[in-house]
Amino acid sequence: MEMIAENRCFGGYQRRYQHDSRTLGVTMTFSVYLPPQAEKAPVPAMYWLSGLTCTDENFVQKAGAQRVAAELGLAIVCPDTSPRGTDLPGEHDSYDFGSGAGFYVNATQEPWAAHYRMYDYVTEELPALVREHLPVSDRCSISGHSMGGHGALVCALRNPGRYQAVSAFAPICNPSDVPWGQKALGGYLGDDKAAWAEYDASLLVLQAAERLPILIDQGSHDNFLEEQLAPDALVKACQSVNHPVELRMQSGYDHSYFFIATFIEDHLRHHAAALGLSPR
Amino acid sequence: MEMIAENRCFGGYQRRYQHDSRTLGVTMTFSVYLPPQAEKAPVPAMYWLSGLTCTDENFVQKAGAQRVAAELGLAIVCPDTSPRGTDLPGEHDSYDFGSGAGFYVNATQEPWAAHYRMYDYVTEELPALVREHLPVSDRCSISGHSMGGHGALVCALRNPGRYQAVSAFAPICNPSDVPWGQKALGGYLGDDKAAWAEYDASLLVLQAAERLPILIDQGSHDNFLEEQLAPDALVKACQSVNHPVELRMQSGYDHSYFFIATFIEDHLRHHAAALGLSPR
Repeated sequence: MEMIAENRCFGGYQRRYQHDSRTLGVTMTFSVYLPPQAEKAPVPAMYWLSGLTCTDENFVQKAGAQRVAAELGLAIVCPDTSPRGTDLPGEHDSYDFGSGAGFYVNATQEPWAAHYRMYDYVTEELPALVREHLPVSDRCSISGHSMGGHGALVCALRNPGRYQAVSAFAPICNPSDVPWGQKALGGYLGDDKAAWAEYDASLLVLQAAERLPILIDQGSHDNFLEEQLAPDALVKACQSVNHPVELRMQSGYDHSYFFIATFIEDHLRHHAAALGLSPR
Repeated sequence: MEMIAENRCFGGYQRRYQHDSRTLGVTMTFSVYLPPQAEKAPVPAMYWLSGLTCTDENFVQKAGAQRVAAELGLAIVCPDTSPRGTDLPGEHDSYDFGSGAGFYVNATQEPWAAHYRMYDYVTEELPALVREHLPVSDRCSISGHSMGGHGALVCALRNPGRYQAVSAFAPICNPSDVPWGQKALGGYLGDDKAAWAEYDASLLVLQAAERLPILIDQGSHDNFLEEQLAPDALVKACQSVNHPVELRMQSGYDHSYFFIATFIEDHLRHHAAALGLSPR
């Protein structure tokens, strides 16, 4: 693991690292914000999963999250959104499949299966690496945006006890039933809908072993709301099994990082409270 | 003037506009943040001048300024850093001269004189346009980063009474005496050092007609500190004429937007206080 950038930020450090991922079989880059408190003792971490076309840097540069993370003593770990450096057939042809669009699943279909294992990467390999090399404790939570909001929900629902909190901005809530999700799940997992169900929050929540509350912010003017995001499907599923969910419709907001920046503080405080952190 | 983008942000609007600039003879793009208070009455504006290679968007996306601007009721106007759309000989050859590097001067040398009039653009045409078309009052202040910090200081020092506050992040303080400044001032203004003096804060302050306090944040680990920025020259000049200046050396910080994001809140509150705004 090699540090390739470091910037002082709100009394802590914003860093980028590269490492050879055995899960993905490629060299990966990720970003981490370490708050000032990490200089004295390991701190909990929020994992942030980004959306289509993003890298590890979008959230770092645009969300303005470091200020509150520094206050709370929360690390923020931002993985990339797909394997990089492979040139599989068609990998770079569309914005919603292949590079920049790993969808946080373990692919089973060729030619993706050898590298596109982002689910294992973000739930297993990366957290282990971070805990081993950085002052980050094993207490963690997870959030994300759009494709990454879907990823955050899936990671939390499939791993009871692992995450202390989960939230999402404009997540793809029911991927089996929308074009982005059908293209991705079909391409990475094949035609078997049972395989898709392992990565669909609105289905996973029906059999969740843990009632971890779900916080979602969704912009009312999000261009993708109706066709791709389908938060109502998730809310309905949650209600059917009494799974706690709060869907906040934010009037006038869109799908951009201006929306995320506006409400990220609420999410960070929600995560921090669940992680046992308090403002300094 | 045409609105080309609008995003809801912290209860207000982050917008981009295009207009045909008569000063520059090209179509220009600028960004403006309008806080929620602007829906009821015109609000004061802080002008932000960006650094080398930037556009109107860097500050908007990376500084995280909208949160505090929304609290204070302060608009933020971000011009581009040079004329665009011309293809003058050599204009795009270097990062520190020509496109992306207008240095906020009125060029007198060919081929630049016809278009590179960023000083008039940011002090006259753009403010008049903004006041005419947007809910922005005539009370304003100015700040900026690096080349734009130089620009902010020059605009304030040359226009007593115009700006209620001035501040800068890592400004080029004494351009006549550093490589970036010598290249730019020589290229745009020719060899006459008297012409350069009209755009050098460390010289202008010696004869300033107004004692507007100057606030500067400077990172101690800024790669450009010694060779290009020279804040000590400005402090020394200010002290020689009792011009109020506060230079805050920020330990460990560099030249990046992570540095700006960390301290922008202090600057916004400084500007707001001078503009008569108070937190809501």
